[in-house]
Amino acid sequence: MKSNISSRFRLWIDKGEKPYLGLGRVILLEKIEEHGSITRGAQAINMSYRKAWQLIEDMNKLSKEPLVEKRLGGKTGGGAHVTTAGKEAIQKFYELQRKIEAFADAETLKIDF
Amino acid sequence: MKSNISSRFRLWIDKGEKPYLGLGRVILLEKIEEHGSITRGAQAINMSYRKAWQLIEDMNKLSKEPLVEKRLGGKTGGGAHVTTAGKEAIQKFYELQRKIEAFADAETLKIDF
Repeated sequence: MKSNISSRFRLWIDKGEKPYLGLGRVILLEKIEEHGSITRGAQAINMSYRKAWQLIEDMNKLSKEPLVEKRLGGKTGGGAHVTTAGKEAIQKFYELQRKIEAFADAETLKIDF
Repeated sequence: MKSNISSRFRLWIDKGEKPYLGLGRVILLEKIEEHGSITRGAQAINMSYRKAWQLIEDMNKLSKEPLVEKRLGGKTGGGAHVTTAGKEAIQKFYELQRKIEAFADAETLKIDF
């Protein structure tokens, strides 16, 4: 018999008790990479530049290497990119989320709610 | 070396794609049981009676047996209690949450964020 039970969850990673990565931050990183700009990446998820920059500073301080770097000046006036460490952090977050999801799905089906 | 990485999550159980149980609903059930009243249970978590009753109706409709029942009248003017099915649902939710938490903690430590 097919169960109609399922579970959902939201995951956050902390570093030393401080929020480090969550789905919102990961999507912000992806949008910055997509647009090559913090301003436009933030706009894409309806976030202010100020808020986005605060989140990036928090993440950069907590990680071994910065996750986002600003590009300096030039004709196109700067921009930003997600570093290799940043791309790895995104991948690791999704990997962890997938593993927990698979476990949670299996355990949820075992319980007769 | 002790890792300073940890994870947090919020869990929701759905039935047939509809929200059934989450930590907020579980705490509402516990408060109703504690106070023997929907009104006072809702007050304890700063929720309106209207909202609490809506959540209870949703849960009761989705579960095999009602999770909360009203007591009728009498000198003390009614009240409500959490049924055996309701108490089991609370236990099962926490049990599932504990299992996922243990798994998530272990998996989080494996990843070099």
